[in-house]
Amino acid sequence: MTRAFVAGAGMVRFGKYDPTVTFEKLAVGAAASAMKDAGAGRANIEAVYLGHVFGGPVAGQRVAVELGLGGLPVSNHENYCASGATSLREAWLSIIAGLYDIVLVIGAEKMTDRVKGGVAPDPSDLDAVHGFIMTAGHAMSARRYMEDHGASREEIAMVAVKNHAHSRFNPYAQYQHAVTLEAVTSARLIADPLGVLDCSPISDGAAAAVLCSEKGLTRLHRPSNLPEVRAVGLVSGTLRTGLYDFNEEDISRRAGELAYAAAAIDPKDIDFVEMHDCFTIAEIVRMEGLGLIPRGEGGRWTATRRTSLGGALPVNPSGGLLSRGHPVGATGMAQVCELYWQLTGQAGGRQVENARLALGYCKGGTVNGTDGASVSTVVMST
Amino acid sequence: MTRAFVAGAGMVRFGKYDPTVTFEKLAVGAAASAMKDAGAGRANIEAVYLGHVFGGPVAGQRVAVELGLGGLPVSNHENYCASGATSLREAWLSIIAGLYDIVLVIGAEKMTDRVKGGVAPDPSDLDAVHGFIMTAGHAMSARRYMEDHGASREEIAMVAVKNHAHSRFNPYAQYQHAVTLEAVTSARLIADPLGVLDCSPISDGAAAAVLCSEKGLTRLHRPSNLPEVRAVGLVSGTLRTGLYDFNEEDISRRAGELAYAAAAIDPKDIDFVEMHDCFTIAEIVRMEGLGLIPRGEGGRWTATRRTSLGGALPVNPSGGLLSRGHPVGATGMAQVCELYWQLTGQAGGRQVENARLALGYCKGGTVNGTDGASVSTVVMST
Repeated sequence: MTRAFVAGAGMVRFGKYDPTVTFEKLAVGAAASAMKDAGAGRANIEAVYLGHVFGGPVAGQRVAVELGLGGLPVSNHENYCASGATSLREAWLSIIAGLYDIVLVIGAEKMTDRVKGGVAPDPSDLDAVHGFIMTAGHAMSARRYMEDHGASREEIAMVAVKNHAHSRFNPYAQYQHAVTLEAVTSARLIADPLGVLDCSPISDGAAAAVLCSEKGLTRLHRPSNLPEVRAVGLVSGTLRTGLYDFNEEDISRRAGELAYAAAAIDPKDIDFVEMHDCFTIAEIVRMEGLGLIPRGEGGRWTATRRTSLGGALPVNPSGGLLSRGHPVGATGMAQVCELYWQLTGQAGGRQVENARLALGYCKGGTVNGTDGASVSTVVMST
Repeated sequence: MTRAFVAGAGMVRFGKYDPTVTFEKLAVGAAASAMKDAGAGRANIEAVYLGHVFGGPVAGQRVAVELGLGGLPVSNHENYCASGATSLREAWLSIIAGLYDIVLVIGAEKMTDRVKGGVAPDPSDLDAVHGFIMTAGHAMSARRYMEDHGASREEIAMVAVKNHAHSRFNPYAQYQHAVTLEAVTSARLIADPLGVLDCSPISDGAAAAVLCSEKGLTRLHRPSNLPEVRAVGLVSGTLRTGLYDFNEEDISRRAGELAYAAAAIDPKDIDFVEMHDCFTIAEIVRMEGLGLIPRGEGGRWTATRRTSLGGALPVNPSGGLLSRGHPVGATGMAQVCELYWQLTGQAGGRQVENARLALGYCKGGTVNGTDGASVSTVVMST
C-alpha cells in the first residue's frame, strides 16, 4: 500500500467577507497558497478534490478553471460540516490506491452570502422544524452534563476562553483576541445555558493541502519526513443514544475506535486534537466520546487547563471552530492545515511542543433530529 | 492491487413521479434492489456512496438511514450529470485500495420537484445566462456537423429512433415505445435543427450497484466471473476546442485515451457503449471524440444501423438518456446497471450478443460556457 503525506498546506483567513470575495476566490486563495507551500506547480497536480456545502453544482470545476487546473479530474464532496474531511478521504484513497502521486484537496465555504441567518434544518428533520435545532440540542447536552457530572457553567465556558486564547496566535483565525470567562458567561443567551460565545460563528473561508505519495514528495523535492496521513475515517449514525445517557456519543466512540485501529495507534500517544467545537459543550462531550478524556472529567480538564497549550492534551491549538471560525465545508481542511503546521513545527505562538501524532475530528449533519450524523477523523503523524 | 467487481445491480423505473415518491424513496428502491440482486444483507455493506445534484445536504445519510444502514460511512458526490459515475469512482477506489470488500453505490435524482422547467445555468456562466444554453450549443453542434460532414438531419434524428427502439425492451426506461424518423424530424422545434425528441427528458429515478472485492464476492457467495470494474476515469476541461473545429471534443478524446490506458484495453475490443446522449448529436460527436467511430462517420453509422442492436458497435442498448430518461445524478449508475446486465446476459430483448467488454460515458456540467466540463468513463469486462 502506498503511503500518503501532506506536502504543503494553505488557508485564507476565516471571517466575514463582502460579496466581491466569492466562494471561488476564497478557494483559489487557499489552494494557491497550499501549492506554493508544497512547491507544486500547475503541471504537478493530478486531481482536485473539493469539499463544500453551499457552493452550488460543479463548484470544484469552477475553482479548478480559475486555478488553471481546468483539465484535471475534479470531485465535489458534500457531508455538511465534515465536507472538507470527506474530500480529503477520496484524495487519500486515490494516493494509497496508487492512482495518483500529487493531488490538491480544498475545503471552502462562503456562508455570509448563502445562509445569512444560520443553516436552516432539512425539512425532513421534524424535530428541528419544530424548534429542536442544533443549538437547542447542545444546550440540553450542557444542562444534562452539568447535572450528571456536577460540572459548572464556568467549566463549560472555559472551552471558549481557552480556544480564544489559542487563536490569538493563529493569523488565519476569524477572531484573534482573548475573551474572559465573565464575557462568555454573561454573553447574550442563545439557548440556556449557552450564550453567543459558546457557539461557533457564521464564517467564510477556505483551506487546502497538497497530498502526495512518496514518489510525489520526491518529485516536488520535499523532505520525506513530512506528516503522513495515517488514516481518514468516516462513520455515521445516531449522535446521541438518548435512551440512557444523552451525552454518551456512540458515534464518537465508534469513530475513535475506527481511527485508532485504522492508523494502528494507541490513543494515549496522541499529542493534540483539532476538535469540532461547534459549541463549547460539544468539545467536552466529543473528547469524552473518543475516550481521550474520562467520562465526566472534560469540564474539569478544561478548567484546570489540561486541554490548553502547555497542558497534558492540548485541544484546538488553532482556536477551533469557536474562534478560528466555521465555514462549514472548509473546517475539515483547516484542521488538516493545523495538523500539518503543528507537526512541522510551524505553528508559532500556538505551537504544541514535540507534537508527533495528532487527530482531527469533524461532525457533519443530522437527519431526523439526531440520526444520520457523520463523523470524520484524520490521524496524522511524523 | 485489489480488483473490483459488480456483485449486483438495481434500478427503479425512470419517469416522472408525483411528490409522494421522494428522492429518498427512489434511492432506497434502487439500493434495496441492488442489494437483493447481490445477495447482500444490511450487515454485509461496509460503506455507502451517493451521487446526486439536487438532493440537498447529507442526502446520502437520509437514504442510508431509511435503508437501515445508518451507522456506515456515507459520502455524497456531486458532478452534475456525471455525479453517479463520480460516486462510483470513490467506491471503486475504496475497493482497490483494500479499505472495503463490499460497498453500495447509488445515483439518484428527483428532478420533477426541483427543476420544473429544466436545469438553470450557473450565474457565472455568462454565455448561458444570455441564451447560449446547452440546447443551443448542441443545436450549433448539429448544424456544424451537417455542414462539415455532409450529414443529413435524418441521420442525426436516427439516434433518437435507434435509442427508442432499444428501450422498448428495457423495463426501467422512462419511454418504452418506438418513435418513427418522421416523428423525430417533425417534433416541436427546440433549437433548430433539434426538436423535442432530440433532447433527453426531465426525469426522476435512481440506480444502484453493489461493488465487491474478490473477498467480497466470496462472502456473498457470488460467482467470481461477474463483471469487473476495470477503471473509472474522470477528466475535466474544455468541451469544444471551438477555435478550429466546433465538434472536435478534446475532452472526449482525453477521456477515452485515459480509460483505454487505465483499463489496459484496446478500444477496438469494446462490444458496446452506454453513451451520454443528452441530445441526439451528442451521441455522434462523443463516439467520434472517443475514437470509436471515425470523424464525420457517426451520422452514417447510425443511419446504417451499425450502432443499433445487432450492428458492429451497439450504442445505448438501454435506450440511453433520450429514452431511458435522464435523472441527472442517477444516469451514471444506470449505465453501470446496464453494463452489468449486458455483461451477465440478463438484458432480455435488448441483449448485446457475446458482450464481454463495455464502456459507460457521462458528461457533466460546464463552467463559463464550454469550460470546466467533466467526463467520466467506466470500463467493465467479464
